Amino acid sequence: MYRPTMTSAARPATFTVGAIDEHGVMQPTPIAGEHPLTIYVDKREILTIMTLGAAPEALVIGYLRNQRLISSIEEVVSVQVDWEVNACSVVTRNGLQNLDEKMAKRTKTTGCGEGTVFGDLMAEIDSVHLRDDVALKQETLFAMLNNVRIHESIYKQAGAVHGCALARIKDGAILTFVEDVGRHNAVDAIAGWMWLEGVSGDDKIFYTTGRLTSEMVIKAAQMRIPVLVSRSGLTQMGYSIAEQVGITMIGRAVNKHYLLFTSAQRLRA
Amino acid sequence: MYRPTMTSAARPATFTVGAIDEHGVMQPTPIAGEHPLTIYVDKREILTIMTLGAAPEALVIGYLRNQRLISSIEEVVSVQVDWEVNACSVVTRNGLQNLDEKMAKRTKTTGCGEGTVFGDLMAEIDSVHLRDDVALKQETLFAMLNNVRIHESIYKQAGAVHGCALARIKDGAILTFVEDVGRHNAVDAIAGWMWLEGVSGDDKIFYTTGRLTSEMVIKAAQMRIPVLVSRSGLTQMGYSIAEQVGITMIGRAVNKHYLLFTSAQRLRA
Repeated sequence: MYRPTMTSAARPATFTVGAIDEHGVMQPTPIAGEHPLTIYVDKREILTIMTLGAAPEALVIGYLRNQRLISSIEEVVSVQVDWEVNACSVVTRNGLQNLDEKMAKRTKTTGCGEGTVFGDLMAEIDSVHLRDDVALKQETLFAMLNNVRIHESIYKQAGAVHGCALARIKDGAILTFVEDVGRHNAVDAIAGWMWLEGVSGDDKIFYTTGRLTSEMVIKAAQMRIPVLVSRSGLTQMGYSIAEQVGITMIGRAVNKHYLLFTSAQRLRA
Repeated sequence: MYRPTMTSAARPATFTVGAIDEHGVMQPTPIAGEHPLTIYVDKREILTIMTLGAAPEALVIGYLRNQRLISSIEEVVSVQVDWEVNACSVVTRNGLQNLDEKMAKRTKTTGCGEGTVFGDLMAEIDSVHLRDDVALKQETLFAMLNNVRIHESIYKQAGAVHGCALARIKDGAILTFVEDVGRHNAVDAIAGWMWLEGVSGDDKIFYTTGRLTSEMVIKAAQMRIPVLVSRSGLTQMGYSIAEQVGITMIGRAVNKHYLLFTSAQRLRA
């Protein structure tokens, strides 16, 4: 399987600082790391991401994938992260697709996200078809939620991060779990990991601790993932887009509770 | 006091949809509204914000303020929101400051935020001096946290929103409270409200339900607010910038608990 030349430059996830509690007692308190990482592609500066830095190479690849700046992992020659200068240098085989056009459009759009090219993504969504021959059993959903608890190490220590997981629909096994200070970074890192490992989304569950806003639903659909699960709630546009694209969206999923909002046919009680 | 000509076009905050719970029972479930709002300034398209729409005029004014595109409320002639076309039209007296330069820079930066002009803001932070002759009593902090609970209506109903409040240091009274689907929108709406009402930040507390990341600390400092309180945790860059700028930063503030991280001299136990 093809893999770009890459560093493996994860940073320490938490740092401990002193804090005074309500009784006046000094409490050593772990806080989540947050570092600027400036992405250069073929020596051109693209943008700066604020990240925990746990999976920077996958994050950068996934960012370029989800922004539709590259269309396959084979286009990526190398990804080199250097924390001495907070930079990630990407070399591509043939350059980025429509970079100038996309950079110009990006300035016009923002969510709580990252200035994604919203109009373009919505256009793409109309052509997405998600698999309908996969079914998630309720007991498998509960098993996956239990598996997530075991993975959340940074959140438990320091809070202030969002977690995302990619799990199998057939047995709820978690294939990868990423935490980051930004909700969208965690999604992008999963997208990068999927490319690096040659994993497709069409028989998977995408789990996030964050809210299901429009951009989260769009990103899951772009990765062809038919089931989206969140510990949190959802917004109206997240709901509308989930209905439109036919993704099975489950919110408020904690322990043995959940609310199933759309495309109920994929869940077996 | 000067006020621009404005609409007052708040949207309904929640919508009710059907969801199936773990027992197979249909539960009518309120979800938070989320609407695109495209900002036009002097007929030029600037960007599209995804918002709950509770305070769109203040949000747009605060966005232009926090991005340093306008330097006083007197520069704003009118703000007209029209939800039929999801647009907000702003007319200024003399145009925006350095718009092209700022739009070009914005493409390069992102946080969980909104592509703020991070470098510019950090440069400005170096010149910020926050008042040191104000003191927050512990009992006033607790009173403010209790006041916040009363205001959180959308969060209680639907979740999936962040809330921000501006409160007085002297007695913990909440002057304004805004909820939005985006953490940064809620902050921007407060900044807009402060300008519209002629309220200064230098003897106030800024409260947020969201995490204290770098961009949140920068925005509070830009508004000259000396005390920043969050229900959630903080990140390493939020901590570093808070130390650098000398803001009193309190995290994990719920009921009668908190952790005081920086500039402890302003809190009286």
